[in-house]
Formats: sequence, C-alpha cells, structure tokens
Amino acid sequence: MEIKNDLILRAARGENIERYPVWLMRQAGRILPEYRAVRNSLSGFKELVETPKLAAEVTIQPVDILDVDAAIIFSDILVIPEAMGLTYEMVEKKGPYFPKTIKSLDDFASHAQTDFDVNDRLGYVMEAIQITKKELSGRVPLIGFAGAPWTIFCYMIEGQGSKTFSKARKVLYTNPKLAHDLLQRITDVTVRYLKAQIKAGADMVQVFDSWAGILGHEQYLTFGLEYIKQITSAITEVPVTVFSKGAYAAIEDIAQIPCNTIGLDWNMNIGQARDIVKETRTLQGNLDPCALYASHKEVEALTKNMLETFESKRHIVNLGHGVYPDIDPEKVKTFIKTVKSYEL
Amino acid sequence: MEIKNDLILRAARGENIERYPVWLMRQAGRILPEYRAVRNSLSGFKELVETPKLAAEVTIQPVDILDVDAAIIFSDILVIPEAMGLTYEMVEKKGPYFPKTIKSLDDFASHAQTDFDVNDRLGYVMEAIQITKKELSGRVPLIGFAGAPWTIFCYMIEGQGSKTFSKARKVLYTNPKLAHDLLQRITDVTVRYLKAQIKAGADMVQVFDSWAGILGHEQYLTFGLEYIKQITSAITEVPVTVFSKGAYAAIEDIAQIPCNTIGLDWNMNIGQARDIVKETRTLQGNLDPCALYASHKEVEALTKNMLETFESKRHIVNLGHGVYPDIDPEKVKTFIKTVKSYEL
Repeated sequence: MEIKNDLILRAARGENIERYPVWLMRQAGRILPEYRAVRNSLSGFKELVETPKLAAEVTIQPVDILDVDAAIIFSDILVIPEAMGLTYEMVEKKGPYFPKTIKSLDDFASHAQTDFDVNDRLGYVMEAIQITKKELSGRVPLIGFAGAPWTIFCYMIEGQGSKTFSKARKVLYTNPKLAHDLLQRITDVTVRYLKAQIKAGADMVQVFDSWAGILGHEQYLTFGLEYIKQITSAITEVPVTVFSKGAYAAIEDIAQIPCNTIGLDWNMNIGQARDIVKETRTLQGNLDPCALYASHKEVEALTKNMLETFESKRHIVNLGHGVYPDIDPEKVKTFIKTVKSYEL
Repeated sequence: MEIKNDLILRAARGENIERYPVWLMRQAGRILPEYRAVRNSLSGFKELVETPKLAAEVTIQPVDILDVDAAIIFSDILVIPEAMGLTYEMVEKKGPYFPKTIKSLDDFASHAQTDFDVNDRLGYVMEAIQITKKELSGRVPLIGFAGAPWTIFCYMIEGQGSKTFSKARKVLYTNPKLAHDLLQRITDVTVRYLKAQIKAGADMVQVFDSWAGILGHEQYLTFGLEYIKQITSAITEVPVTVFSKGAYAAIEDIAQIPCNTIGLDWNMNIGQARDIVKETRTLQGNLDPCALYASHKEVEALTKNMLETFESKRHIVNLGHGVYPDIDPEKVKTFIKTVKSYEL
C-alpha cells in the first residue's frame, strides 16, 4: 500500500523534504487520556502489549490526536528476553522486574534460548503491526523497534533497572566470554525479530540502546556497537535508526556502521553532532522532554530555537527522550504544529 | 606546614611531575573494613559526618592503608542545603531524603537561608579539616569539596535522587527566576564554605556536579556552569577541580572558566578531551570503577592501558566515578601501585 505521508522515510534516506517530519518516543500511550482509558480496562501493561487489537488501537491514537508523521508500534523492548526464556513483570511505578536472571553459561539453555521461531513466541507483535498497518491505510509510516543487545543484556543480568548497572558491567570484566555469548544470542534473535516486524509491515525500525551511556568508549565499541552493527548490517529492507542514549563519545563510530539515522538525546549538541557526521546520516531529536512543561508560547519558541540550529535537511524532529507521562497533550500539539509550520 | 608529597598540587598547576598522582573519589570510607568499624559504632552516616575526630580518622585511613597521594575530607555535599535550612536524612540503601523541599520563593526565608556564618553551622567540617591536617602532618595534601549549585538545587527541589530530575528541570522552564535566585543563594554560601575549608587547611578543592549530564548543553551553561564559574573565580587561594559528570558537550566551556583541573567520568574519551582542552587544563580520571572487579593482572593491564593514552603530563589519576562499595581494597591497591610505578 502506498504511504501518503512518507516524509520521515525520505528524511531518513537523505532525500528531499518539504518540511521536517516529527514524532515522539513513547507517543503511543503515556500522555493521552484515550490511552489510559484502554490501559485501565486491562489487568496491566503486559496485557496491552500482548493484545494485538488494543496495541494497534493505542499505536494509532497519537496519529489521530497529535497529528504526528509516524506511528510507532506499542510494545516493549523486554519482549525479547521474555521470548528467550526470562519472564518479566512490570511493577507499577517501579519498572520491569525479572524474577530470574542469567548468572552463568548454564543458564543459557533455559533462559537464553535462540532456537525458536519469533512468530511463535512474539506473534502478538507481528499481529499488532498487521492490524495497525491495515487501520492506518497508508496515512503515515509505522516504526518497528527493538532494544539494542547491550541494553537487553543489562536487564538479563541485573533483573531490573539500576543507577550504575554495575552487575552487568562487572561481567564484561570478569567473564567477557559469557558477555559475548549472551550478546550474540540476543543479537541473533533481534535480527530475526526485526525482520519479522518488517515482513508484517514495519516501514522503518529503530534500535534503542537506553544504557549505552554507562559504558566507557572502548567497551561500548566492543560490547555495544559491534552487535548493533550486526543488526543494522542485516536490515537492508527499510531505513534504520540507532539511538545510543548518552554515548556521546561514540557518535563518530555510530556514523561508521550501516544505518540511516542517529538519535540524539537532549544533552547532545546538534551542531557538534552534525560536524561529526557531516551529511552522511540523518539526525533525530532532540528537544528536552522538560521543555514541554513551559508555556505554549515558550514551547513554540524553544522548538523554533532548536530548528534554527539545524544546518541540514537531514533531520527528523523528536524529543531527546520519551515524553514524560505528566505532560499536557496540548503542549505536545504545540510542539508538533510548530515543527510542521516551520518553513525550510 | 610543608607538604612532603605535593605531586597532586603540582599536577593541578601544570608544573613538572616525576609520576602521575593518584587518589579515588569516595576513598574516605566505603570500601575499607577499618571504615566500617568506625561507621558501625555510630547511629548513622550523619553522626560520622558531624563528629570531627572520627571524620578525620576515616579521612586518613586511605592514606595509611591505600597509599593514595591525597586525602579528601570525609563529608557530604548535602551539608550545604542543611545549613541553609533543609534538613536531610540518609536512608540506608536508598540515599538522601529531604522531608521538606523548595516549592516557591516563599520557602526561601526558612529553607534557603544565606544570612549565617558557615563556621557556626558547618564548624564540624572545618574542625575535621583542622584535625586531619594536624594528623596528616604534611604527608599528602588534603582536598576539600562542595557540590555544584545545580546538583544541590536538584536535591533542594526534588528532595531525593531521581532518574530524570524532571521536577528540578521543570523549574528551569516554568520559573527561571526562582531557579536563578536559588542557584545564586547556593553559590554564595558555597563560596563562603569553600573559603572556610581552605582557611581551615584544605590544600585544594573540588566542585562535584553529579547531575550535570541531565541538562541540555545551553541550559547547562546558563544554570550550571555560570554558577560554577562564580565559585572558581572566587577561589584563588588553592587549585580548583571541576567535575561535571556526564557534561560531555560542555568540556570546552569548562576549559574557559578559571579552574586547574577538569574531572572526566569513565565514558568520556581522554583523547577527545585532551584535543579540546589542549595543555590549558589538567585532566582527572577516568578508569571505569567496574574495572576493579577484574583480576589483579587485568586491573594492572587496564590501568596501564589508560596511562598509555595520556599524551600529556597534566593528569591526575582517578576512577571515573566513586569507588563501588563492594570492591576488594586489594584491587584498589593494585590500581594505585600500577599508577605509582608507571614511568613517565
């Protein structure tokens, strides 16, 4: 099916655009009362992730309500460790929790499985993508996604969020073989998972490396980027975005691997990043999510201020991280309208 | 009193050194059984901070046991908000908690006081410094410290740690006047506090901006570095170190304010930082604290590996962040010995 508004795909490929495309991370849900109505009718977050019809519904809400230039499938990066054999719970106000974690290579047989068909264990995601694509009927592209192997590794070792992820990082020093073996397994499954998403209808994909910033530069190249590179090299069907949050030192390395777009968080300087990547990559970001707490007038000014720092057309506008749950959706609309009315 | 080992002071000033000086953040306590013996004899962390004789004792322990090239006074950055009128509690395994926080300018009279003598309210710190200096009898320099205004501001607004510090950052957008007024008050008190530490005997001082990395570049200049600059401009008596954790984009700006040394966390690339600051500043850091989980042989190799990346003598060796509490002190000794035996 032809996509009517393919602005984001063209921006990712470095083709000509009439204006900058805009979308938000975590736009599928979180801030919309319409999302909360769906969410509250269910037992929990995971039920929503695993119910394709409802996942599709909340995926499309921001397209209808906020008028963004792309939908992103409502799901979670932790479906991958779960499919590999580590069940997670989403604890209200605390985040994910894995009752079991990987402690040794012996755990691999039961908790780091790779010998399965992603369509069997994660079929609900592909089904949600198919329903979404049908209901979007080509209005805007649909973004698929997965966590980067390093970030998934962190959860599989730590079992929950952490300030330092020092348990996960300790393994890199004390048992690099286990680390590489597990990262390779996650990578293999992730490639198959993203390819299944694309086959189901995803028009572009994003790899989220939420904990990239807690690794030193050299370690990030070895244990982080190396595996992302395997993924982005394997995905040739659609444009690929890499968002390595906080990995400032690695921007020039990310620009060396196959990918179309590099995500920037809000504490990265767009001008400095542009100097590094030149015109070889599209940059995505990076308004501070807190900027949307300001008044409408200031949201407009802050957004314009950011747009004016762009020295290239190779930009996809977004916040520098996911939208915060208590942001007024009307402020989000102001942000989006400001981007859409900005003349290139 | 003359200081016998003044290596760290010379390194900070960019003078000639025979070898690189080395110390650790959080070395005063945390990893040593000798520290825990003192700590466990008391009701809590704050009692130790507020008992000069014992604070001096744990300050000197790492000099005796680990053979570091500097002592750092045992204290906490949160003594400043407490002196200003916001009492904190140190909750075991959770961190600091402030029952009251700053919500409006009306709170300033009682919770953001500046009209007091730091020697009255924080005399216990100055007394601990005097005792430490006496007991060190010039073996190594003593480092004094304070939190940077932005980091103290975060705690005064949020009341506790946070992943995003979005409440504190929200104020920058919604009430910049309150933000600037509070930051100025913290700055004024901090200058007086650091000067009192120096008068009591501190031979150099460090300003810790633990939450620098959560601000966008421009905001960090306005709400972070501007106030650090006021502090470092006022401290002319001794060498000053600025450690803005995670503020990668701002390294070149930090190199423009008066200061001798710039701290780097472990995810910053030393070579990139050196390219930016050239020979104008000493760099401090930045081995990954997790590296000390590796075997003795590897700790030695990782340390040497870092030292070999130094292209200048303007370095003070340290970890990229505080030492983790469960690190074996013998590994710390290996790290320190490796630095001390490295030939320049």
